[in-house]
Amino acid sequence: MGSGKILVAQGGGPTAVINQSLVGVALEARRFRDVTRVYGALHGVRGIVDEDFVDLTQETSHNLELVAATPSSALGSTRDKPDEKYCAEIFNVLRAHQIEHFFYIGGNDSSDTVRIVSEQARAAGYPLRAIHIPKTIDNDLVGNDHTPGFPSAARFVAQAFAGANLDNASLPGVYVGVVMGRHAGFLTAAAALGKKFPDDGPHLIYVPERTFDIERFLADVKATYERHGRCVIAVSEGVHDASGAPIATLLAKELEHDAHGNVQLSGTGALADLLCDEIRAKLGIKRVRGDTFGYLQRSFIGCVSDVDQREAREVGEKAVQYAFWGDRDGSVAIRRTGFYSADYELLPLNAVAGKTRTMEDEFIASSGTDVTDAFRLYLRPLLGSGMPDAFRLRCARVEKVLRR
Amino acid sequence: MGSGKILVAQGGGPTAVINQSLVGVALEARRFRDVTRVYGALHGVRGIVDEDFVDLTQETSHNLELVAATPSSALGSTRDKPDEKYCAEIFNVLRAHQIEHFFYIGGNDSSDTVRIVSEQARAAGYPLRAIHIPKTIDNDLVGNDHTPGFPSAARFVAQAFAGANLDNASLPGVYVGVVMGRHAGFLTAAAALGKKFPDDGPHLIYVPERTFDIERFLADVKATYERHGRCVIAVSEGVHDASGAPIATLLAKELEHDAHGNVQLSGTGALADLLCDEIRAKLGIKRVRGDTFGYLQRSFIGCVSDVDQREAREVGEKAVQYAFWGDRDGSVAIRRTGFYSADYELLPLNAVAGKTRTMEDEFIASSGTDVTDAFRLYLRPLLGSGMPDAFRLRCARVEKVLRR
Repeated sequence: MGSGKILVAQGGGPTAVINQSLVGVALEARRFRDVTRVYGALHGVRGIVDEDFVDLTQETSHNLELVAATPSSALGSTRDKPDEKYCAEIFNVLRAHQIEHFFYIGGNDSSDTVRIVSEQARAAGYPLRAIHIPKTIDNDLVGNDHTPGFPSAARFVAQAFAGANLDNASLPGVYVGVVMGRHAGFLTAAAALGKKFPDDGPHLIYVPERTFDIERFLADVKATYERHGRCVIAVSEGVHDASGAPIATLLAKELEHDAHGNVQLSGTGALADLLCDEIRAKLGIKRVRGDTFGYLQRSFIGCVSDVDQREAREVGEKAVQYAFWGDRDGSVAIRRTGFYSADYELLPLNAVAGKTRTMEDEFIASSGTDVTDAFRLYLRPLLGSGMPDAFRLRCARVEKVLRR
Repeated sequence: MGSGKILVAQGGGPTAVINQSLVGVALEARRFRDVTRVYGALHGVRGIVDEDFVDLTQETSHNLELVAATPSSALGSTRDKPDEKYCAEIFNVLRAHQIEHFFYIGGNDSSDTVRIVSEQARAAGYPLRAIHIPKTIDNDLVGNDHTPGFPSAARFVAQAFAGANLDNASLPGVYVGVVMGRHAGFLTAAAALGKKFPDDGPHLIYVPERTFDIERFLADVKATYERHGRCVIAVSEGVHDASGAPIATLLAKELEHDAHGNVQLSGTGALADLLCDEIRAKLGIKRVRGDTFGYLQRSFIGCVSDVDQREAREVGEKAVQYAFWGDRDGSVAIRRTGFYSADYELLPLNAVAGKTRTMEDEFIASSGTDVTDAFRLYLRPLLGSGMPDAFRLRCARVEKVLRR
């Protein structure tokens, strides 16, 4: 080894456990005698090209542990998506600082950045080891059983729907909750884990892996409402029609047209509001409420899966081990080995970079509006220990005295 | 005593701890030898006039404890606001079932219902004891230091802003979170308890107790953004201009006008979206995100204050004690006796019914966009034990090698 300097950075949307991976790298690296300094880049790749580095070696292990348990990216993040030229700048800075190990914690885009930088270093004959560490609440990285950050976000969504269902049972009506996940329905599907009794919501779940048809949606809602006197619905932000057009756009246009110049809706209006308006207008149901879970589902402090925390730490640790004991660059991946147990492997960067995983067919019920038991078994252990639970009164009815 | 039958019901918006009060009534009542049956009415006053009663006496204490720990109203709730005639129907049913003790868990409207029924019973010479048990996340009942349900909702809001602040620090921009509370700013002000370091958000807090001026708002955001490079804002759903007109309505109209027929916004559009559009348009800031906390803040399962749970149980227990050992109807109220300790008292119904508490001046900073230390000291102990905490890296900067 040369300088003994390693660099770690965090990219993309923060998660509840991304700092576990950061701290996994920082603490594990210190155990290698060749390592002299652990640098962190502020705000991801942006901080690399700007040389905005901090020396994590000067942190105490105590504070690193406290930061590990804190959600969001402690080093800051970025939405920059480096192209070849941007990557060349990254590589120049790494070389200028004599950094020979680069760890980037992030999703699809980040893995692609690592891939390009890795190739540029090889082409230049520079001895760089570049490792991608997985992270995304969307759970859309291929080659992984699941990705760190997803279990905690899924837990938030499950708990949110468990509560929304209780609220909706108390004051019956229709409730629509819109969930993140882009083109992957995993996070929306997690709503199903908030369900306990057979008549509990969510009664309907819409993922982007299935075409969304507004007429069928309204028919589904109507049938559920007639059966249960209420309806709780989980909808992915990424739902689209057969042509791939986002539903929010279509609805906004339709309603705009209906209004004949009377201002009704934003072209980018919240999907939840739009669906609620449709239900009110077409089904004549009065009590219709919609929530968009927004940033709460990825940033809320105090809703985290201990399994997720542990694994996020481990992918950071393993990245360092692969870097120093292995002989190639790559992307750390989670493999499921038992119910429940996980192990790790290093995948080639081009097996992960630029690819998007979506929900497997076996996870989606044939109705297209529910998940399968296979999905429930897949997700349950990831949610971790101490999941809150809901209980009901077992009602013994009292005989009426008056005629009603 | 006559029949030995008592009736309990839950009204208005559910909270995380309203079932604690229900179970407090049910379990405490069984300790009184005069009580033969504890009935629960389904869906509040609606269940009374419909004689939809269940016999809680047949529940096990074990299941009652599990239900107590479950959020939302286990008996179901209602938004019905009874007038004199409706109350007369309630009274008729109570008399028909020989119910001589009536406990209603709810907010302002519920206390007014109890007041009217109490007066009707007295006028009819019927021996009814009617007790109102406080509940509301808005914290807007007069005569109470605070109301059960508020601390848990406040905890959710504080945790949400603690997380949103971390997310915003990681990917800088402007974040607007809209919080419930109607005409009272307590719940929005709770956002301040999510702040830890001096430069943390929420940087700006807007409560309905102060007039909201959009130009001043934009100036506040601009100044904060220039100072910190980011801005986290808590806004009450109830903010209004000097005339009392809701800001959402005003903004929707203004933007509709700006658009000259180009559909932009719903007349009832989400306040968060409207404020974000204003910030983007007037301040030219690109990364602007808004969330409306919606039903999550009152229904999320797994975010509850243990202090709130305990007190909600106690107001239920005390209600029964006041009913059987006291000589008058009334509304149970929480009084603060130490830092932190609480006691209970029975207020006259007309001291609480139909009145609305708003934030005291001493709780609002002179800037109008922050809370005072008095408010922080007021709220902190109510949030309960185990509040999650956020930690930062103490960054040791690395010297730049390249010229940048």
